[in-house]
Amino acid sequence: MSAIELYLIRHGIAAEHGIYPKDSERPLTDEGQEKTRQVAQRLYELDIRFDLIQTSPLVRARQTANILQSAGLGQSLEESSHLAPEGSFEDWVSWLRSWKGEKLAIVGHEPNLGEWTERLVWGSVHHQIVVKKAAVIGLLLPETGSPAGKSQLFWLTPPRLLL
Amino acid sequence: MSAIELYLIRHGIAAEHGIYPKDSERPLTDEGQEKTRQVAQRLYELDIRFDLIQTSPLVRARQTANILQSAGLGQSLEESSHLAPEGSFEDWVSWLRSWKGEKLAIVGHEPNLGEWTERLVWGSVHHQIVVKKAAVIGLLLPETGSPAGKSQLFWLTPPRLLL
Repeated sequence: MSAIELYLIRHGIAAEHGIYPKDSERPLTDEGQEKTRQVAQRLYELDIRFDLIQTSPLVRARQTANILQSAGLGQSLEESSHLAPEGSFEDWVSWLRSWKGEKLAIVGHEPNLGEWTERLVWGSVHHQIVVKKAAVIGLLLPETGSPAGKSQLFWLTPPRLLL
Repeated sequence: MSAIELYLIRHGIAAEHGIYPKDSERPLTDEGQEKTRQVAQRLYELDIRFDLIQTSPLVRARQTANILQSAGLGQSLEESSHLAPEGSFEDWVSWLRSWKGEKLAIVGHEPNLGEWTERLVWGSVHHQIVVKKAAVIGLLLPETGSPAGKSQLFWLTPPRLLL
């Protein structure tokens, strides 16, 4: 595995719980779509590109990933059940170690993204990272070995401070 | 102590070691001044303001703090020996607990700023945070008790991803 830049991106603002019968079907609101588009545009201007955009299968995440793709941030997009709310960090790391690429975006949910960030950087979960909707986290994973507890945090930004 | 938003800001690019007889006297380069001005301007546009800008007494930090002040980010500026390379985290925390204010910027050095961030957020030092020159880190400190291991990380950005 070569050194990987990993970007963890939380889905945008979604419709409230209760309006849709299944949580997995809640879509982005109009505001959520618009803000996510602005974030995607800003990432594009910052010359950020992904070899792959991987997304949770839930509607609000898939819509977020589609917006990133439409903004020109990456051509390849795939769903991964590891990124769903019930997904497993260990299973995703196993997948990652066989992935051939250098810049990866994963679109998913809280508390998973914050927990995964803490596991990757410090090796344990403290719930001390604030991950807003449409926030972006940037990690540099090591070239060899497990990335857990060995990754470096170089970026964390809520959309308010990115636009 | 009320909840404090703490911004840790590393000094900008400075002249090389060796050109100046004392490390403490190394000034910002022209590029360092320009980039720091751009960062300060961006912070201003993002509506970030400080009740106090506290700086290391070293020239490159004082110049960085002066640029932040000149950009309109805060009127009060003071030096603190705790923020010098040999400064003590514990002494600074003691000072902080008597400070009356809500938004504080501290301008200082590596590896101190990254280590202090890790001590504030996770309670221990791992050297897993990348803090570039003129980078900005945002922490939310708890309302009561020691902030060590209890603060939340809401922002970390290198200048490249801020401009």
